[in-house]
Amino acid sequence: MKILFVGDVVGNIGIKSLETYLPQIKQVVKPQLTIVNGENAVNGKGINLEAYQKIQVAGADVVSGGNHSWDRKEGIDLYNDSKKNILRPYNFPGDNVPGKGMIKINVNQKKVYVINMQGTAMMAPLDNPFHTFDKLLPTLEKDAIKFVDFHAETTSEKIATGMYLTGKVSAVVGTHTHVQTNDAHVFNKETAYLSDVGMTGSYDGILGVTKGQIITRFLTQRPTKHEVDEDGRMQISFCVVDINDQTNNARSIKNYVINPDNKKFLE
Amino acid sequence: MKILFVGDVVGNIGIKSLETYLPQIKQVVKPQLTIVNGENAVNGKGINLEAYQKIQVAGADVVSGGNHSWDRKEGIDLYNDSKKNILRPYNFPGDNVPGKGMIKINVNQKKVYVINMQGTAMMAPLDNPFHTFDKLLPTLEKDAIKFVDFHAETTSEKIATGMYLTGKVSAVVGTHTHVQTNDAHVFNKETAYLSDVGMTGSYDGILGVTKGQIITRFLTQRPTKHEVDEDGRMQISFCVVDINDQTNNARSIKNYVINPDNKKFLE
Amino acid sequence: MKILFVGDVVGNIGIKSLETYLPQIKQVVKPQLTIVNGENAVNGKGINLEAYQKIQVAGADVVSGGNHSWDRKEGIDLYNDSKKNILRPYNFPGDNVPGKGMIKINVNQKKVYVINMQGTAMMAPLDNPFHTFDKLLPTLEKDAIKFVDFHAETTSEKIATGMYLTGKVSAVVGTHTHVQTNDAHVFNKETAYLSDVGMTGSYDGILGVTKGQIITRFLTQRPTKHEVDEDGRMQISFCVVDINDQTNNARSIKNYVINPDNKKFLE
Amino acid sequence: MKILFVGDVVGNIGIKSLETYLPQIKQVVKPQLTIVNGENAVNGKGINLEAYQKIQVAGADVVSGGNHSWDRKEGIDLYNDSKKNILRPYNFPGDNVPGKGMIKINVNQKKVYVINMQGTAMMAPLDNPFHTFDKLLPTLEKDAIKFVDFHAETTSEKIATGMYLTGKVSAVVGTHTHVQTNDAHVFNKETAYLSDVGMTGSYDGILGVTKGQIITRFLTQRPTKHEVDEDGRMQISFCVVDINDQTNNARSIKNYVINPDNKKFLE
Ligand SMILES: [Fe+2]
Ligand SMILES: [Fe+2]
Ligand SMILES: [Fe+2]
Ligand SMILES: [Fe+2]
Ligand SMILES: [Fe+2]
Ligand SMILES: [Fe+2]
Ligand SMILES: [Fe+2]
Ligand SMILES: [Fe+2]
Repeated sequence: MKILFVGDVVGNIGIKSLETYLPQIKQVVKPQLTIVNGENAVNGKGINLEAYQKIQVAGADVVSGGNHSWDRKEGIDLYNDSKKNILRPYNFPGDNVPGKGMIKINVNQKKVYVINMQGTAMMAPLDNPFHTFDKLLPTLEKDAIKFVDFHAETTSEKIATGMYLTGKVSAVVGTHTHVQTNDAHVFNKETAYLSDVGMTGSYDGILGVTKGQIITRFLTQRPTKHEVDEDGRMQISFCVVDINDQTNNARSIKNYVINPDNKKFLE
Repeated sequence: MKILFVGDVVGNIGIKSLETYLPQIKQVVKPQLTIVNGENAVNGKGINLEAYQKIQVAGADVVSGGNHSWDRKEGIDLYNDSKKNILRPYNFPGDNVPGKGMIKINVNQKKVYVINMQGTAMMAPLDNPFHTFDKLLPTLEKDAIKFVDFHAETTSEKIATGMYLTGKVSAVVGTHTHVQTNDAHVFNKETAYLSDVGMTGSYDGILGVTKGQIITRFLTQRPTKHEVDEDGRMQISFCVVDINDQTNNARSIKNYVINPDNKKFLE
Repeated sequence: MKILFVGDVVGNIGIKSLETYLPQIKQVVKPQLTIVNGENAVNGKGINLEAYQKIQVAGADVVSGGNHSWDRKEGIDLYNDSKKNILRPYNFPGDNVPGKGMIKINVNQKKVYVINMQGTAMMAPLDNPFHTFDKLLPTLEKDAIKFVDFHAETTSEKIATGMYLTGKVSAVVGTHTHVQTNDAHVFNKETAYLSDVGMTGSYDGILGVTKGQIITRFLTQRPTKHEVDEDGRMQISFCVVDINDQTNNARSIKNYVINPDNKKFLE
Repeated sequence: MKILFVGDVVGNIGIKSLETYLPQIKQVVKPQLTIVNGENAVNGKGINLEAYQKIQVAGADVVSGGNHSWDRKEGIDLYNDSKKNILRPYNFPGDNVPGKGMIKINVNQKKVYVINMQGTAMMAPLDNPFHTFDKLLPTLEKDAIKFVDFHAETTSEKIATGMYLTGKVSAVVGTHTHVQTNDAHVFNKETAYLSDVGMTGSYDGILGVTKGQIITRFLTQRPTKHEVDEDGRMQISFCVVDINDQTNNARSIKNYVINPDNKKFLE
């Protein structure tokens, strides 16, 4: 099975990038499952029903999240709608967290679990992701593909998670830093790994946000508005994981970026 | 002029990776200047005279540093030796910081400044790098290549620095996360940029360190030894920046990794 | 000279606490100068003209600030009004920071400098406060009282600052943690010191904020509104520094809190 | 029952301060139970058998810990000795954490639980302390005194914990910042609270450490040795909680510091 994963969609321009490129990408890749990280879909902060629907119409089967999943109240209703294929990180503490951090779907008779987990290094102290995996994974059906969106800041926690889950899940792809890394590979012929898939949105902003605002923030250390760079040129960041349906092991993972300076994928 | 930059060398295996691959890389690239980040050269923590010399013999013209530059006392003498082409980050506070954060060298009559600067987002509160550049750059000769090793944690500070320095320096390449990013490009046909060059050392460790120790740390949150994964397989991470000697603008930047799963460069 | 310093005023209830207790305190203490930290005066986030005026009418001669000084735009006009005795931390980076971080006033012919400085440990990377003092203090008149509001998080940076400035300024009092410490004393018979003066506002909230919101935040790690606990019972936190006008050395420092469980000062 | 709690003992001078003052304090207070935080007993970093025994001989019934509990390997054997009344924070993740985070002792037929818990705000991401209390407390005997040493950095997490546990435990006293706070009181006539008990060790150092080393660290932002200020003058920081054995509610809490500038308690 081929799974296509698209990194953090930021703002309307992120959704527009998705609408523009995702159909073309799917024609080439022909994935059986498409997952899109949407934690920044609405003004860079969280997601709502409208954005979720647009992302779905653009081609996503599952929408995952991250630390920004909670930025807007209207998202809570969305998460609480059990019919929606939307995730927030699994390991927020407590028993009554709205929504779900994992979803099980059938893709042509094959079971696929998509799990969204958040790191805790240089991030909020959610439940320890390593121990959370230890508790969660044994409860899942053995003969199933398990795909992890690990939303984390540091490279050390990301790689450690990829190695820790090697042989236990089919793929671990990182999100959150909004910059794609160049380390896609399959650990031990079992688990596909990429530290970060990167950002989908303005190629001209900083992580999708208007560049002047971010630079001013670093220069002044005073609060500045952070607004999505809606007038920038488009970029989409994604990876394709090929998984053996018999063994649930990954065969390959390839990462791509499409933007004005990099149209290779489309050629 | 072609400048070759090699990312953070970790431990003896990092030096060995350098000794193994750098000569081959130089035969292909034919760089006029080679810069190597050596902040983790000795047991992953700092550098000393012996490691500096080995890195130089392996082919480096300049060795830059980072937050680990101060990890061992014997490094101080090295930094204080004005004849050595070794840098530590420029923006450590105070007037009496050992060593230098910038070096000016002549490469075939062309002047090249190599500047090592450290970020402050999720790192120690050194002098503000943006303002430090504002003070430093006007004091440098105009007709010269300026190459920046920006040692920083967050993608936002790195990209902001790259954009802030666009048109002011020839290249900004990031170090510190030990994972190469896939965002090499030239801003505005002026300034080459790459968020992180990545790590040179064990391909089988986590950021160069023995993987079990790092995983145990995340599982237990208790202190663990961090030792270089000296028995791992070799990796080298680097980029090549091509700069127009007339305009001092970058023409191109390309990033590469060589490891057991990725020998493309050598083919 | 006796200087009265009141810790972080949070919200309307903080201003009301000030209006209620400050006149009584002044009757007892008879200070020649009263300084109030007002960084949280408006809904816990920043200050505006109206709040500044109320604090002044309640008895403050100088209003100092902190990391929250920039939380509302209307504060900028206030800071830019050179006739207002209002401070924001001195060490925000750059040349064009609105307002001032120091003020020189005459109190019965005696010159007094009030300096507002912010720490950088576990806070934003402002200009290094130690080096900033090194540059600033030699430019001030020698025969003057120098009073420092050091707005910082960690006890180590606060005490280090107090010791570093011993013999150079008359007093260093800390703000920001909203909890008064029990370590008031005079270093070397020269410089009065208190790690934190504490909070002026709701005795029933958490640092002045509605307690349920803060607890929910820790339980869920998801965003919660932080609103001032305006219906709580009143508290005022302050200290009194007695300074020898001849030597500019502190004679004594005493810290007090008045709240429903602690009316000792008023008896 | 009167419980005496002594704040973080730092180094030999901390133990010496304990040996000097604890007997005198016990003569005055006549506590039925004495708890001492010993996370910094050996060179400021962790504890070993010898230090534990000295602290016990000096008068401690229970020794609690904190983030530094793991700083030395020889401590592990000590924690694993079930006969020793030594605690490390309860909420380190995983099933195989050496030692214990809670102890149940009988004091004149009355059962007392002493619980050592660590915060996660601006500290390592241990298991969420709020949820951990939610799971732990219902498993304990109802008719018992429950005394909590909450080792945490921020005042907000400390007060939130005190308020959250009000009515559920007899006392919550904070440790870790090494500076005693001035906010001792009983929440709702049920739960005694103090944000931080403060430090026992050198009065002349910074948090017990040689002052020059800490100041140099802030000035240079480069690594410095941190050594206990063994030649300083002595300080002991403590509090006394009076608990009603019938209701297990606190009647009062009083905090004290004894040092060269403050001998009030001894008079
Ligand atoms: Fe994101
Ligand atoms: Fe994120
Ligand atoms: Fe490094
Ligand atoms: Fe580094
Ligand atoms: Fe405040
Ligand atoms: Fe503050
Ligand atoms: Fe401690
Ligand atoms: Fe501690």
